[in-house]
Amino acid sequence: MVENLFTKLEEIYPKMVDFRRELHMHPELSHHEEKTPEKIAAFLRGLGIEVRTGVGGRGVVGTLEGGKPGKTIALRADFDALPIQDEKDVDYKSQVQGVMHACGHDIHTSALLGVAKVLSEFRDEIPGTIVFVHQFAEEATPGGAKYMIEDGCLDGVDIIYGAHVMADEPFGTVGVRGGYASSAQDDFEIEVLGKGGHGSSPHTTVDPLVTASQLVVNLQQIVSRRVSPQHAAAVTVGSFQSGGANNVIADKAVIKGTVRTYDAEVRNMIEEALKQIAKSTCEAAGAGVNIHYVRDCPSMYNDPEEAKRIEKIAQYVVGTENVREMAPMMGSEDYAFYQEEIPGVYFIVGGENPDIGAVYPHHHPMFNADERSILNIGKVFISSALSYLSDEEIVPTGK
Amino acid sequence: MVENLFTKLEEIYPKMVDFRRELHMHPELSHHEEKTPEKIAAFLRGLGIEVRTGVGGRGVVGTLEGGKPGKTIALRADFDALPIQDEKDVDYKSQVQGVMHACGHDIHTSALLGVAKVLSEFRDEIPGTIVFVHQFAEEATPGGAKYMIEDGCLDGVDIIYGAHVMADEPFGTVGVRGGYASSAQDDFEIEVLGKGGHGSSPHTTVDPLVTASQLVVNLQQIVSRRVSPQHAAAVTVGSFQSGGANNVIADKAVIKGTVRTYDAEVRNMIEEALKQIAKSTCEAAGAGVNIHYVRDCPSMYNDPEEAKRIEKIAQYVVGTENVREMAPMMGSEDYAFYQEEIPGVYFIVGGENPDIGAVYPHHHPMFNADERSILNIGKVFISSALSYLSDEEIVPTGK
Amino acid sequence: MVENLFTKLEEIYPKMVDFRRELHMHPELSHHEEKTPEKIAAFLRGLGIEVRTGVGGRGVVGTLEGGKPGKTIALRADFDALPIQDEKDVDYKSQVQGVMHACGHDIHTSALLGVAKVLSEFRDEIPGTIVFVHQFAEEATPGGAKYMIEDGCLDGVDIIYGAHVMADEPFGTVGVRGGYASSAQDDFEIEVLGKGGHGSSPHTTVDPLVTASQLVVNLQQIVSRRVSPQHAAAVTVGSFQSGGANNVIADKAVIKGTVRTYDAEVRNMIEEALKQIAKSTCEAAGAGVNIHYVRDCPSMYNDPEEAKRIEKIAQYVVGTENVREMAPMMGSEDYAFYQEEIPGVYFIVGGENPDIGAVYPHHHPMFNADERSILNIGKVFISSALSYLSDEEIVPTGK
Amino acid sequence: MVENLFTKLEEIYPKMVDFRRELHMHPELSHHEEKTPEKIAAFLRGLGIEVRTGVGGRGVVGTLEGGKPGKTIALRADFDALPIQDEKDVDYKSQVQGVMHACGHDIHTSALLGVAKVLSEFRDEIPGTIVFVHQFAEEATPGGAKYMIEDGCLDGVDIIYGAHVMADEPFGTVGVRGGYASSAQDDFEIEVLGKGGHGSSPHTTVDPLVTASQLVVNLQQIVSRRVSPQHAAAVTVGSFQSGGANNVIADKAVIKGTVRTYDAEVRNMIEEALKQIAKSTCEAAGAGVNIHYVRDCPSMYNDPEEAKRIEKIAQYVVGTENVREMAPMMGSEDYAFYQEEIPGVYFIVGGENPDIGAVYPHHHPMFNADERSILNIGKVFISSALSYLSDEEIVPTGK
Repeated sequence: MVENLFTKLEEIYPKMVDFRRELHMHPELSHHEEKTPEKIAAFLRGLGIEVRTGVGGRGVVGTLEGGKPGKTIALRADFDALPIQDEKDVDYKSQVQGVMHACGHDIHTSALLGVAKVLSEFRDEIPGTIVFVHQFAEEATPGGAKYMIEDGCLDGVDIIYGAHVMADEPFGTVGVRGGYASSAQDDFEIEVLGKGGHGSSPHTTVDPLVTASQLVVNLQQIVSRRVSPQHAAAVTVGSFQSGGANNVIADKAVIKGTVRTYDAEVRNMIEEALKQIAKSTCEAAGAGVNIHYVRDCPSMYNDPEEAKRIEKIAQYVVGTENVREMAPMMGSEDYAFYQEEIPGVYFIVGGENPDIGAVYPHHHPMFNADERSILNIGKVFISSALSYLSDEEIVPTGK
Repeated sequence: MVENLFTKLEEIYPKMVDFRRELHMHPELSHHEEKTPEKIAAFLRGLGIEVRTGVGGRGVVGTLEGGKPGKTIALRADFDALPIQDEKDVDYKSQVQGVMHACGHDIHTSALLGVAKVLSEFRDEIPGTIVFVHQFAEEATPGGAKYMIEDGCLDGVDIIYGAHVMADEPFGTVGVRGGYASSAQDDFEIEVLGKGGHGSSPHTTVDPLVTASQLVVNLQQIVSRRVSPQHAAAVTVGSFQSGGANNVIADKAVIKGTVRTYDAEVRNMIEEALKQIAKSTCEAAGAGVNIHYVRDCPSMYNDPEEAKRIEKIAQYVVGTENVREMAPMMGSEDYAFYQEEIPGVYFIVGGENPDIGAVYPHHHPMFNADERSILNIGKVFISSALSYLSDEEIVPTGK
Repeated sequence: MVENLFTKLEEIYPKMVDFRRELHMHPELSHHEEKTPEKIAAFLRGLGIEVRTGVGGRGVVGTLEGGKPGKTIALRADFDALPIQDEKDVDYKSQVQGVMHACGHDIHTSALLGVAKVLSEFRDEIPGTIVFVHQFAEEATPGGAKYMIEDGCLDGVDIIYGAHVMADEPFGTVGVRGGYASSAQDDFEIEVLGKGGHGSSPHTTVDPLVTASQLVVNLQQIVSRRVSPQHAAAVTVGSFQSGGANNVIADKAVIKGTVRTYDAEVRNMIEEALKQIAKSTCEAAGAGVNIHYVRDCPSMYNDPEEAKRIEKIAQYVVGTENVREMAPMMGSEDYAFYQEEIPGVYFIVGGENPDIGAVYPHHHPMFNADERSILNIGKVFISSALSYLSDEEIVPTGK
Repeated sequence: MVENLFTKLEEIYPKMVDFRRELHMHPELSHHEEKTPEKIAAFLRGLGIEVRTGVGGRGVVGTLEGGKPGKTIALRADFDALPIQDEKDVDYKSQVQGVMHACGHDIHTSALLGVAKVLSEFRDEIPGTIVFVHQFAEEATPGGAKYMIEDGCLDGVDIIYGAHVMADEPFGTVGVRGGYASSAQDDFEIEVLGKGGHGSSPHTTVDPLVTASQLVVNLQQIVSRRVSPQHAAAVTVGSFQSGGANNVIADKAVIKGTVRTYDAEVRNMIEEALKQIAKSTCEAAGAGVNIHYVRDCPSMYNDPEEAKRIEKIAQYVVGTENVREMAPMMGSEDYAFYQEEIPGVYFIVGGENPDIGAVYPHHHPMFNADERSILNIGKVFISSALSYLSDEEIVPTGK
């Protein structure tokens, strides 16, 4: 059956490219998506798929019930754009000043709609339900995932798959890994509140600069002493600002930083330790302290068994030699919120192609990706959905 | 004899006030003094005093040889103004936009010229030589003192006295102390040169912020471990700047600070230790380092015996109860350069008088001082010069 | 075929227990093994196996050439005992005062000899060569592995398997993992050489205690800043000794610690960084430094593919539910030296059995292990050896 | 009159030497003085001086009321010996095994008794009262001064003078200084209570060694940031003990140190800051803490005016060129307790004389001092007592 679906997908590919370019020319910023969800909803409705709009704000959720009973799987694509000026010289260049699909969400969306079209045509043979999660505002903090989950987009869903086209991975490749696929990201800002004065009379002051320096040094012990050597974590102070003049002790020092972790317990421990160290270090010096600690995205955790499924399917789709172990991502991805709720996998699909100038990094004004990644995403989505629902290794023998 | 000189000084006091106001209305910035030295030179020449101009740049040196052989004493007054807008409401307000005698140098100059006039009239009775050092650019770094010394203004001089009117000491008081009267002041700027990168991948970077924090902490040991508890010293980092974003490790961190000491050996030790600590701390982290260490003023050291002379004379001039032990000054004063060469004393004369609105601090747009401080400075100068040259306690009995 | 060999092994099991108890009653310390290697050599020679003794000192290597050509596999068992007084109440209790097989090496040896006996009987059917590596002095630093390798015990060997009975894992279980199975272990001792003096006059001293404290703090940055969050490492200072009296600054401070790593590059980086930090931190303070850095064992790296082979075989031998992912070992094991040379796997076999009092940890005077672990080690050795040499999954169907 | 008293003192000098040697042969340890106070009391009673014994324990206080009304002055000498074996080869060598007057208290006592004898003979001419404070247990912590004060030895006393013979100052010299003459001495011991474990698993521990190191580093900021550069202070950690093995994280770390200050406010501030820093630094790390802070002696503060009196008198007694400014003492002296109550001066008298082998430091088995220091102490005591009571500069003219 899979081969038939692949053939079908290839047939509608030109149409999906058109859809992608349409989105590309009319990109919309996070939390300001209007036309995009309308277009998605219209497309899905045209396939006879049940559609809910305004999910969690601006999300679109399509539900395709198969002809046979079974489990429920969600496939996710995001559709917001970025505040970047498109500087590519192509005829489908962004027509919105200062806004651009510079991260490939248009490709994700187009791929998922293609998948919806193909699956809807084979609806009767599908054992179970497929939920198409078209997410808004992935680039925002917090992103749309959180709100769509709160609005029920995962209700009754057993598993979720998501994909990202990567401009720095060669077209034709797929990357996936079991376990942690991105780190949780928290940010902090600590104000050390001292008492200023003249540099020649430190005893009349509470020197916040020395205390903040001490604090930075003390914070190193979180990773060196409190995190298991087996666990990955980074606590980085990226910014330190205090004073200005050589001879004046300032009233305060401000440090800002980031915390990256995978394990949730480690994440909790670090937040607590960081706050305690900041508080106590300032107390030691007689200084006050304000601590702002913001939890951004959790880490993405790919279900190891499901990751193996995707790996095998990808080997079938792009060839064994083109499937790589994906390195854990540095940036955050709000797909992680889905994985906090239910098992899931997030994989990447290569989009780099020097022949067509697709060589610029994400968020670059010249960003582009090989559109054939629509096909690769689509094929992995289709195969893995069917495999999961049918509980079979759907990969044809002989390959 | 002293009483006669005092009487003479009081007679010419109105004239000296006029001179002061003339300077006040036409202030000139450090290193840009033109008319001021001309006026001073003209005044001195009018007294028959031998004058050298352009000393070390813009300084004026008058030499009054007494009628009898003896030692040589220098009396010093500075004459530059500040880049401050005069906001006082007096008829002798500055007529130069944005320039103002906001530190009382006009009073010093006027007082010293009054002294010159009085002493020149008693020239025959004076055993020795009196050198009038009218210094330019005291407010600059380095100030004019250094250049005037290089140009010979202290050649053959045995001792030097200097005075400063103080707007935060009551009019009618004099302050003096033996030993250190101000600290030496050095400034430093240290660039810690790391290698930037993403906050989640510290191992790909050389984190300059942590290293600079470590450095600030290590620098505390200079005072806590290397300076004798008996010696005064302060090593203050006043400014720490690195990075800006939470999650980006910057390429460098820059700290700036000041070093205050009295003892010359301690000063040398600290410079050496600070450089070594900066260098080694950066080496430990694999970071580079640029160290800029600038020696500003040395400390003023008042000769203890001569300070006692000034103290006794001041007790005579303003009354025992109005002579105080001057606290060591926090700011620097390039008078210290004279005291590196020959023994000397620097004393302060109160100029604060709420009745005339002289209540604002130095360098304030409303700064003013009681002009009668001209008399007090003048009297102490005259008495101490005669006392030193005649080797007598010149204070009249009965007082 | 495997089933036949298992049957054979079970038949000779009582004999192997006797051999184990004979060793248990006559334990010999590391580097002092005399009778033990003689007994092993005699046993192997009795099987018609070619034996080399004195390998690398006191090692014994038996070589069994199969009847068919093929690859060469080594199986390793260690045979030294510990300086611990046996306090068990069993009739095969150690008869040597203060020496005891308290780590199970007698079981390893007995298991490997049983394997040799069984395989020698099926010699004609074996495609390839099996090398029995009976190692001395595993408990010493450095252990016998290094010397046996230097003396050629791995010459021509393609792969090596090793096993350890574990008193804290339930009898009947097997543990194995691909990748790092133990950390590399290095030790260091740093003497900070200051200049002593009285506590009230720190400026006359070079305070080694403060410098060593600074050093301990600085060393935290190795793990927090220089090791990738993805890599495991621990740098621990376990001992800090300086001075004794409250008011006397000592001449020196001595810190001692350990470094644990998996990755060889990380290991090298840490050694270099630690030395640089120690050197520079002491230089910053004007102190001298002596650094002793000793590399003990490297990390054990289990070949991932071969680990999967062992896992499958173990599932067959003890049941799927009894095979666990082995946690990376904390202690060092000189088996790692073999794995530096050729691919290999090290696995653990449960020996804990409360029914027979086998509940004490390794190196405990009451240590014991269920002797049936001889069978489990033996079966995994036999199966994996045949599987490797025959390039087949040898696990019978139906299980 | 003074000259007559000096002549008298010189006449009885041989007798005082005998008394000193008698004490020297029969030294008694702190808090164990029995015969010594008896001998002193007997001597004083023999002079017709009113005597109180057992003051504060073992002290002896004689009160000589002059023939005229006036102020009351106390003169103090201590009389305990040390647990040191006398190794001198003199006929008045200690006859008590392991006990020795190795600090010159026998000389102080003898000098003060000589003074009592001389003054008692001139009793009628003395305007006021002289109190002879013979103190026990100066070498103990706390010493006898505290207890004698509590028992009223200073009741009604206006001023106190005390002296110490110094084996490292040339015989014939006197040293005195106004202001602080010794530092206050406090001791501390801090236990950092962590949680031990294996060095490879720091996350399962609370590492007390790192925390104590951090603490030592943080304590440097007390002197560098919280003490005025104008104030002297030392905070020294003399002992750091934690762990023993390279690879074991210990349960605790113990640091011990000393605090030296002059100013009482600085002393209080440091105690508070040290406790806060210890508490907070441990809290930051999740460790517990025990802090033992013991206040030993306060600082000796010589009344500046009275110090000038002693200086002038000493110039008369030993010659101007032989009077030096005494450096502040490093060790503690419980004379400071008297100075906490009333104004006073403590001065030193040279006792070094190579010609008689008096070249060894205090507390040395070969310690001795030129006995003529008895005369110098006595003369300064007599003159300063008379000067104070008579409110006159008693120094004869012409000298």
